[in-house]
Amino acid sequence: MSTELERLTARLRAFAEARDWEQFHTPKNLAMALAGEVGELVAEFQWLTPAESASLDPATLDRVRSELGDVTAYLVRLADVLGIDLVEAAGAKLDENERRYDPGRYRGSARKAPPLSS
Amino acid sequence: MSTELERLTARLRAFAEARDWEQFHTPKNLAMALAGEVGELVAEFQWLTPAESASLDPATLDRVRSELGDVTAYLVRLADVLGIDLVEAAGAKLDENERRYDPGRYRGSARKAPPLSS
Amino acid sequence: MSTELERLTARLRAFAEARDWEQFHTPKNLAMALAGEVGELVAEFQWLTPAESASLDPATLDRVRSELGDVTAYLVRLADVLGIDLVEAAGAKLDENERRYDPGRYRGSARKAPPLSS
Amino acid sequence: MSTELERLTARLRAFAEARDWEQFHTPKNLAMALAGEVGELVAEFQWLTPAESASLDPATLDRVRSELGDVTAYLVRLADVLGIDLVEAAGAKLDENERRYDPGRYRGSARKAPPLSS
Repeated sequence: MSTELERLTARLRAFAEARDWEQFHTPKNLAMALAGEVGELVAEFQWLTPAESASLDPATLDRVRSELGDVTAYLVRLADVLGIDLVEAAGAKLDENERRYDPGRYRGSARKAPPLSS
Repeated sequence: MSTELERLTARLRAFAEARDWEQFHTPKNLAMALAGEVGELVAEFQWLTPAESASLDPATLDRVRSELGDVTAYLVRLADVLGIDLVEAAGAKLDENERRYDPGRYRGSARKAPPLSS
Repeated sequence: MSTELERLTARLRAFAEARDWEQFHTPKNLAMALAGEVGELVAEFQWLTPAESASLDPATLDRVRSELGDVTAYLVRLADVLGIDLVEAAGAKLDENERRYDPGRYRGSARKAPPLSS
Repeated sequence: MSTELERLTARLRAFAEARDWEQFHTPKNLAMALAGEVGELVAEFQWLTPAESASLDPATLDRVRSELGDVTAYLVRLADVLGIDLVEAAGAKLDENERRYDPGRYRGSARKAPPLSS
């Protein structure tokens, strides 16, 4: 795992320990917390067109950054309690998808298959 | 951003470019893809007790690792198209929460406030 | 509650009882199951433009109908175990939103406020 | 569709028309709005044990009722713009699950298969 991610992981662990919140940080509960934060993120984009979502005004971008911070925090904490390396897990999925979605065959089409992952 | 996360970001970008899928990777669409993957992750834990979720059998752990890989891939790709640094965003939220949740006052209680983030 | 919704509620309750699955149907678990199904629903729309999502091909519409069936089943079951009347709860929110979003002031704008609910 | 659900559907349609918000109410956008509200619902339960989630204090129950109202409103509105009958769709899934999960075989076990739906 990367140094910066390792540092964030350690900070989140210390944060939970200092408040005796490890008892709440089961994978089940953290997955729910992650889902809650992703819900807030999705809500930021719900009435925007795809094009509008790509050129956010500064206030919306700040809220989105804050939501992405929450999502990242819970994701990193969940991976820590499960002993999973996120970058490695994503890399393994990407290896698989590079084999599965031939660039020539799937070029420009999201209809034939869901891009990026299964 | 950390070197390992930078490498993953670059790989995901190249993956999208090689298939001409950048047109689908708007923040709105990527937030939906992230929500879809988090839904699959949550589904893995839905019928488990919190204790069971903390000691997964190997097959379930493999599926969870795979889902966490998908979640990470979409999250990193979304942050890339928005120009947001995930580790920095999470760190800023953690700074805020360290001020907000005094360890003495919130010790052992998730009732008083949602731990880890707002 | 409506007769048709009452019948669906009763069928779902009998389904759970016949399999001794009431033990799994806590509000926490059912909320997770609902989130999982909504994730599958969102995934159906993730790469479509808003316009495309409004004119689905028959195969996609069938999958969406099936996902909406799952979402409805878990929502109705969750409301049943909580003793909440869904139509009444939605009506109360709509009363509130009719007061809050003056038709003249909010006409044609989703920017000023999130339409339909808070 | 049931009379009460029909009335709610009609009210939601009139609410959108009066504000010229039909333009925002594409299936893609409404699915996102639904996901956002389900995220808020899940967040209410995230730190509770399954048992605690089954005996909510009055204030939490009020918030949960309000979230269920929002979820129902978006679900009913989404079904309306798609021309899908929710009760019929849920009934069809339940028919399928009654065949699939034999009460004798699946009795008391959520391990063998996800209860209630696929």
